[in-house]
Amino acid sequence: MIWTVYLSGEIHTDWRERIQAGCAELELPVEFVSPNTDHDSSDAAGDHLGTEENPFWRDHKSSKVNAIRTKNLIESANIGVVRFGSQYKQWNAAFDAGYLAALDTPYITLHDADIIHPLKEVDAAAMAWAQEPEQVVEILRYVTQGK
Amino acid sequence: MIWTVYLSGEIHTDWRERIQAGCAELELPVEFVSPNTDHDSSDAAGDHLGTEENPFWRDHKSSKVNAIRTKNLIESANIGVVRFGSQYKQWNAAFDAGYLAALDTPYITLHDADIIHPLKEVDAAAMAWAQEPEQVVEILRYVTQGK
Amino acid sequence: MIWTVYLSGEIHTDWRERIQAGCAELELPVEFVSPNTDHDSSDAAGDHLGTEENPFWRDHKSSKVNAIRTKNLIESANIGVVRFGSQYKQWNAAFDAGYLAALDTPYITLHDADIIHPLKEVDAAAMAWAQEPEQVVEILRYVTQGK
Amino acid sequence: MIWTVYLSGEIHTDWRERIQAGCAELELPVEFVSPNTDHDSSDAAGDHLGTEENPFWRDHKSSKVNAIRTKNLIESANIGVVRFGSQYKQWNAAFDAGYLAALDTPYITLHDADIIHPLKEVDAAAMAWAQEPEQVVEILRYVTQGK
Amino acid sequence: MIWTVYLSGEIHTDWRERIQAGCAELELPVEFVSPNTDHDSSDAAGDHLGTEENPFWRDHKSSKVNAIRTKNLIESANIGVVRFGSQYKQWNAAFDAGYLAALDTPYITLHDADIIHPLKEVDAAAMAWAQEPEQVVEILRYVTQGK
Amino acid sequence: MIWTVYLSGEIHTDWRERIQAGCAELELPVEFVSPNTDHDSSDAAGDHLGTEENPFWRDHKSSKVNAIRTKNLIESANIGVVRFGSQYKQWNAAFDAGYLAALDTPYITLHDADIIHPLKEVDAAAMAWAQEPEQVVEILRYVTQGK
Amino acid sequence: MIWTVYLSGEIHTDWRERIQAGCAELELPVEFVSPNTDHDSSDAAGDHLGTEENPFWRDHKSSKVNAIRTKNLIESANIGVVRFGSQYKQWNAAFDAGYLAALDTPYITLHDADIIHPLKEVDAAAMAWAQEPEQVVEILRYVTQGK
Amino acid sequence: MIWTVYLSGEIHTDWRERIQAGCAELELPVEFVSPNTDHDSSDAAGDHLGTEENPFWRDHKSSKVNAIRTKNLIESANIGVVRFGSQYKQWNAAFDAGYLAALDTPYITLHDADIIHPLKEVDAAAMAWAQEPEQVVEILRYVTQGK
Repeated sequence: MIWTVYLSGEIHTDWRERIQAGCAELELPVEFVSPNTDHDSSDAAGDHLGTEENPFWRDHKSSKVNAIRTKNLIESANIGVVRFGSQYKQWNAAFDAGYLAALDTPYITLHDADIIHPLKEVDAAAMAWAQEPEQVVEILRYVTQGK
Repeated sequence: MIWTVYLSGEIHTDWRERIQAGCAELELPVEFVSPNTDHDSSDAAGDHLGTEENPFWRDHKSSKVNAIRTKNLIESANIGVVRFGSQYKQWNAAFDAGYLAALDTPYITLHDADIIHPLKEVDAAAMAWAQEPEQVVEILRYVTQGK
Repeated sequence: MIWTVYLSGEIHTDWRERIQAGCAELELPVEFVSPNTDHDSSDAAGDHLGTEENPFWRDHKSSKVNAIRTKNLIESANIGVVRFGSQYKQWNAAFDAGYLAALDTPYITLHDADIIHPLKEVDAAAMAWAQEPEQVVEILRYVTQGK
Repeated sequence: MIWTVYLSGEIHTDWRERIQAGCAELELPVEFVSPNTDHDSSDAAGDHLGTEENPFWRDHKSSKVNAIRTKNLIESANIGVVRFGSQYKQWNAAFDAGYLAALDTPYITLHDADIIHPLKEVDAAAMAWAQEPEQVVEILRYVTQGK
Repeated sequence: MIWTVYLSGEIHTDWRERIQAGCAELELPVEFVSPNTDHDSSDAAGDHLGTEENPFWRDHKSSKVNAIRTKNLIESANIGVVRFGSQYKQWNAAFDAGYLAALDTPYITLHDADIIHPLKEVDAAAMAWAQEPEQVVEILRYVTQGK
Repeated sequence: MIWTVYLSGEIHTDWRERIQAGCAELELPVEFVSPNTDHDSSDAAGDHLGTEENPFWRDHKSSKVNAIRTKNLIESANIGVVRFGSQYKQWNAAFDAGYLAALDTPYITLHDADIIHPLKEVDAAAMAWAQEPEQVVEILRYVTQGK
Repeated sequence: MIWTVYLSGEIHTDWRERIQAGCAELELPVEFVSPNTDHDSSDAAGDHLGTEENPFWRDHKSSKVNAIRTKNLIESANIGVVRFGSQYKQWNAAFDAGYLAALDTPYITLHDADIIHPLKEVDAAAMAWAQEPEQVVEILRYVTQGK
Repeated sequence: MIWTVYLSGEIHTDWRERIQAGCAELELPVEFVSPNTDHDSSDAAGDHLGTEENPFWRDHKSSKVNAIRTKNLIESANIGVVRFGSQYKQWNAAFDAGYLAALDTPYITLHDADIIHPLKEVDAAAMAWAQEPEQVVEILRYVTQGK
């Protein structure tokens, strides 16, 4: 069994790379999927469908094109990892967590201790809270190896 | 048919009251449900189950007690209204939006124009974006009356 | 048991009234639900959320507000009746039929014989094809009385 | 991951070929599925099960044989593309769109601007509206590559 | 809680009446639903939709009209009772049993000992096998009273 | 796509072999699955779990062991073929048809014209009625090739 | 909204009565449902269907009759309370907990601290762990009142 | 078709090995999955996420990390085998059985005759009761070979 892991959230640090590198080193049977993590191309995903003067509709079109991707990937996942940085709003990450919770797909949160309180509902529905990407790697190692 | 409307999100302004008052005045066939909107009692919801020194576990216990309520109410809803203020993180509101989206329950977002961009994924899955509670009342009037 | 019947489609003839009157006369345990059947107010359902210059977005906003209603009503229905006139495109009626089919909710089509061929896929998933509203009344009488 | 794309609707222009050629050129990880797009053999799909004098039953039998195919293919799809020409009734395409919507499978509509208004409900449930097959190719490129 | 009990199968003996009378005497919180149990009107359920020369299509139309009723009633049931007489084919009863099994709705079979062997698959998916209607009454009494 | 076809019902004629041979000759992308079609070993499937004096329990144990197989295979199927001979009770075949109907999996019935009437409910939920295995082969050819 | 609470597990102490009395005193909008809590009549639930010499089959028949009740009640519940005494095996309580978990219905465990370790999987899927029935009452008060 | 078999429960005897060896010898198309069966590493599965002084939370964290694994594996299974030794509480095994029952996934119980009575609810929802691992092998042989 290959485990599909959906990596949701923050795009400004190297947490995805550290998780992927850690799992690769251990040769875990894991496949990673993510939304587009490039901010500019994500915002422009719908631009080729026609220019919008109203920024709401530009965002709307691009977000829906992105959602074709993310909806499929989230629903294909065995496990979610949802990352929150301490600075940004990252409502899309919390949205993904709620989506995973409703699908009853296990997910892990990854964030620092200083945002425990505002994330309490998101953490309450999670199967684990990690502070470092390497802890996520260790969870994935354990979960896929069962020992 | 009585329509159940779940009011999720921000607790610092009177948006819930304005929606409820507006619908009451029109005698709409609508029933409103909400999470606990009192911050302190929400944080303390699990305290009677035993004291925790680690704030993570205090939050964890209280959030899960709250989730017994919110999970049932969200799943009973015909319509969600998800409110974001411009200041706070409100990850629980975005979590609820994701949950509603995964259940394929229609929801309306309620927020100012200055946070359109960070909310684009949440708005993309919504059926309407309102800026004022009275617009939500008008949507509920139209939707329940069909004219 | 009160049976909920969703009446979808054409808005230019009195087929809804004839079905409702026929069922009322027989005092059948039936409750009827419909989308907004007034063309102008349906098109304007989202206008109060802000003016759109681009007609696509005006339609988009209004259709989504309408969908909050129709999605809930279709999902609450025990039976659908989908009416096609011989003239118009009525893609929303065919859309509703597909929605009902995917939910595995039984539906009846109501249309003249001259459009049998273009409606063959819609009829193939239906439980009955009627040509007159009074035939639908007779089906509803039989189905709810069981004799 | 190979993405399965269901191509529904109009059969009189080369839109399917243009999408498939465009994706092949880009070597996208996409597999296309379609209903039978040959009008005559589609109409005759049930003829070998016995002759019908009544054209309704001939259509009925053939449509059901076709539905064995389409129902399986639609339910296997990650993404739908639903094409409407400006002339024909194409109720089967709108039916497919409703079916996809009820399954909560993302779909893209492909049609000219002159039929925006009658398609507003179908577009409202879609994730994107394209006017040219090449725009669909670009969406599929973006969605499968995530950048 | 009112328990809905679907009574499926044989129509030539008074088993339905005996179960209903027994439950009425005990004032159990039970509501009974059944397909049309009148053979002639059941066969004619679709006749008003137009005459068919081919008996297959007459049966087809009537069966589908009946199915609008039975599908809704079966899906509303908390418990099924499926009755097989020793003589007839009663494929509709076995069909209902399979339908109930797939819905994971508990059902009771009611039949004599001489047809145990041909009914073994139907009995294997049942929660109880009764030989007399009064045993079904006793099960319903116990199940609804819990003592 | 490999299509999984579940072959349910009668075990005394060579209909399964004829369907399989016909599809093999055409090299259709079809995989066939069936319950155990050997009467004696099917009846004895649970004997190794301990002897039963009461024939009801022997049947019960064997049927449940068989159901581990059939339940999985039916649920894996894209298409069912349900065969009824003119002589036997074959309640397991009708049970399978009901199970397929509840799963909304398309199925084809295969039986002679002399049992149309008792099978009317089973045929009403089917996508096609065939009288000869070769007609089923032709349906499978058409459905998998789409032309 | 009336909340349905399923009370599963141990039958030798007065925990059910204490929860029910506590909720009655507070006039909470709660309805309680339980399996049969009388050991002897539960074991005898299937006896009227015929005597069994083999105790396995007596248990089997009675358990299935009980399951008609419990399956319906569990599936109707908004909240489960699963009670474990410190002495008995109570595999049925753990079974109910697993059933509730798979349905994604929130449940509360009620047990002493000395069995934390063997119950860790059951507690991990629970929304709260209480040691006294009065704590369950307080949870139900909070959850139904939302404050 | 490769059949996935989930092996749940007791970890102190060699029942898993005997089942796996028996199936390997017969070259059955079976893949086995299990929770972590090593007691110490299972208890420590969450330790790397931070030390807990309260043993409840240590168990809680480890159990949830384990549940990421078991939830995925149970949901991927075609068949469950749930083993109860005569000594231990093994509430996790009964929990898994309830979970499998709610998913409607067929499972086999494996236990001695002396615990028939306390396991009656768990056995009632099972498809077979075996006393020896070799009987499970024979069931798996029969089920996968269909003869």
